[in-house]
Amino acid sequence: MEETTATAEKSGRERLLKLVRPDMERVEAAMRRDIEELSADMAPLLREILDYGLFGGGKRIRPLLTVLSWRLCGGRDMEIERLAMAFEYLHAATLFHDDVIDRSHMRRGRPAVNSVYGEVGAILAGDFLHARSMALVGELGGMEAMSVFCRATAAMIDGEFLQLANAREMNLSEENYFAVIRGKTAYLIAAACEIGGLAAGIDTTRQEGLRRYGLNLGAAFQIIDDLLDYRGDPQKTGKAVGNDFVEGKMSLPLILALDMAGDSARERLLELLVDEESRRSGVAEATAIMEECGAFDKTAQRAKALIVEAMTGLPEAASDEALAARLGLELLGGYVLNRQK
Amino acid sequence: MEETTATAEKSGRERLLKLVRPDMERVEAAMRRDIEELSADMAPLLREILDYGLFGGGKRIRPLLTVLSWRLCGGRDMEIERLAMAFEYLHAATLFHDDVIDRSHMRRGRPAVNSVYGEVGAILAGDFLHARSMALVGELGGMEAMSVFCRATAAMIDGEFLQLANAREMNLSEENYFAVIRGKTAYLIAAACEIGGLAAGIDTTRQEGLRRYGLNLGAAFQIIDDLLDYRGDPQKTGKAVGNDFVEGKMSLPLILALDMAGDSARERLLELLVDEESRRSGVAEATAIMEECGAFDKTAQRAKALIVEAMTGLPEAASDEALAARLGLELLGGYVLNRQK
Repeated sequence: MEETTATAEKSGRERLLKLVRPDMERVEAAMRRDIEELSADMAPLLREILDYGLFGGGKRIRPLLTVLSWRLCGGRDMEIERLAMAFEYLHAATLFHDDVIDRSHMRRGRPAVNSVYGEVGAILAGDFLHARSMALVGELGGMEAMSVFCRATAAMIDGEFLQLANAREMNLSEENYFAVIRGKTAYLIAAACEIGGLAAGIDTTRQEGLRRYGLNLGAAFQIIDDLLDYRGDPQKTGKAVGNDFVEGKMSLPLILALDMAGDSARERLLELLVDEESRRSGVAEATAIMEECGAFDKTAQRAKALIVEAMTGLPEAASDEALAARLGLELLGGYVLNRQK
Repeated sequence: MEETTATAEKSGRERLLKLVRPDMERVEAAMRRDIEELSADMAPLLREILDYGLFGGGKRIRPLLTVLSWRLCGGRDMEIERLAMAFEYLHAATLFHDDVIDRSHMRRGRPAVNSVYGEVGAILAGDFLHARSMALVGELGGMEAMSVFCRATAAMIDGEFLQLANAREMNLSEENYFAVIRGKTAYLIAAACEIGGLAAGIDTTRQEGLRRYGLNLGAAFQIIDDLLDYRGDPQKTGKAVGNDFVEGKMSLPLILALDMAGDSARERLLELLVDEESRRSGVAEATAIMEECGAFDKTAQRAKALIVEAMTGLPEAASDEALAARLGLELLGGYVLNRQK
C-alpha cells in the first residue's frame, strides 16, 4: 500500500514537472536577464548578493502559480514570466529579512545571505528586491494588481508581528496559528494566483476563486512544512527533526496535541516545553506523545481538507492550454501535500 | 554684518514657515489618519512603532516638495497630501533600516526605533512603510509616478552599497562622493518633486526642470549636513562636532581639504585619519587644518552653486497659487543653505 502511494506520488510529481518545466525555465531565464540588465547600474556587491540569494535553489512555486493562473484564465500575448518573477523576488526579499530577524544562518542547505554577506547586505538586498518586485507588478500588472500585491505585503508584515506577539504563548489557539500562516505565507501565494488571473483580464468571481485556491494551498503548504519539521527525513529537509519543538515554536502539530492529548500527556508536554534544555532533551518523548494522541494525523487531515477546499475555487478551463494549466494547479495541490522537503 | 545675515535668514525661515504651515498641517493630519485607518488590521506593536517613528519630529521636507511642485504646476482637485506622505513614509523606512545597518541608537535627539523596539521591529516596520509608500504612489500617482519612485528607491539602495564600498577609502573622489549623495538623498528628493508635477499633469520639459531642482536641492541638503557635522552648534544639531571625522567618514569637507591643503597639512590629515584613536584625539586639529585651507568655505560654495543651479530648473508659475508655491520652493533653497540643524 505504502509502495503504491509512493509510486502515485512520484508519478504525480513527474507529471507536474514535465508539464511545468518550460514555464519554470522561462521564469528562471527572465530573472537572470532582469538581474543582468539591472546590474549595469548596480553596485557589484549587490549583484553578487542577488546572484547568491536568488539562484541557489528554491522551488519557484509562486511564479509558477502566476503563470498557470494566467494561462488558465485565457491569458496570452505577454511575457507573463516577468510579472511572475515579482513573486519570487518578494519571497526572496522576505527570506533575506527573516533570516536576519531570526538570526538563522542556514537556508536551503547552505549559508544564508546574512551569513555570507552580513546583516547589512541582507537588509539592503532585501529592500532592493522588495522595490523591484513592486515595480514589476506596477508596470506589468496595473493598478488592481498593485493593490492586491500591497495588501498581501502588508498582511505578511502583520503576520510577522503576530508571530512575535505569539512567541512562547503556550495557549496558542488554532485560529491564531491560522492568522499567522495566512499572513506569512498564504496571502502572498493567493496574490500570485489572483494577479496572474488579473493579467489575463478575469472577472471578480474567477478572481475570488483563484484567491481561495491560493489561500488554501498556501495554508496547506505551511502546515506540511510544520509537519515535516517533526516527521520529515533530515536528509531531504536539510533540518534536524523536531527543530520547531526545540525552539518552542507553537506550530499546528503541537497546538493540536495540546488539545487532543489526555490530561497527563498534556501536562507532560507542557513540562517539556518549559525551557530550552528540557525541550532539547525531551524532543523524542514529545514527538512520541504527539504521535500517539493522533496530532500528526490530524495535522495531515487539516492540510488535505485545505487542498480539497482549494480545488473548489479553480475557474473552469476554456481551451486546451487552459486545461493543461488547470491540471498543473491541481497537481500542485498533490505536490504540496506529498512533498518530502 | 553677521547680525544682518542672521536676521535675513531668520526672516526667510519665517516667511517659509508662514507660507507652508497649512500644507505641513494637512500632511501631518493625512499621515495620522492613514495610520489610524490602517491600524484596524495591524498588530498593536506595529502601530506603536509607527507612532513612535513617524511622529517624533522630522522636517517633512519631502512631502512639502511634492505639494509645492504639484501646486506650482497647476494641480487641483486631489488630496495631494496623501500622495505627498508617501515620501515621508519611504524616508522614515530608510531611516529605520539605516539605523539598524549603522547600529546607530539615537535619532532626532532621542532613542532610535531599533533602540526602543529592537532590530526586528525596525526592519519590519521599515518594510511596512516601504510597501505602504509604494502602494500610495501606485494608487494616487499612476504608472509614470510609480516608475520614477521605483528608480529612486533602487538608486537609494545602490547609494548605500556604494557607500559601503567607499568606507574608509582615503582617496575618495568628489565624483564618487556625489554619486553616493545623489543615490542616498537627491534622487528621492527629485522624485518627490517630479511626482508632485506628474500628479498635476505636467509635460516632460517641466518634469525635467523639477527633477533638476530636486537633485540639486537634495545634493545641497546633504552637503550642508556634512558641513554642520564640523561646524554646527551641537546644541542645535544634537550631534557632537566632528563626529564624521571620528567615524572616518569621507564627506565633502574632508575630501576637499585633502585636495586643497599643502603637502605637509595633507600628510598630517592622513596621519590623523589612520585609526579611531587618533581620529578621536585629533578631531580639533583636523578641523583647524580644514578651516585654514579653506575646505569649509569651498564646501559652502559648492552647496550654494547647487542651489543656484536648482532654481534654474523651476517651471514658471501660471496663477497666484502657483506663484506662492514657486516662492515656497525658492525659500526652501535658502532654508537648506542656512539651516542650523
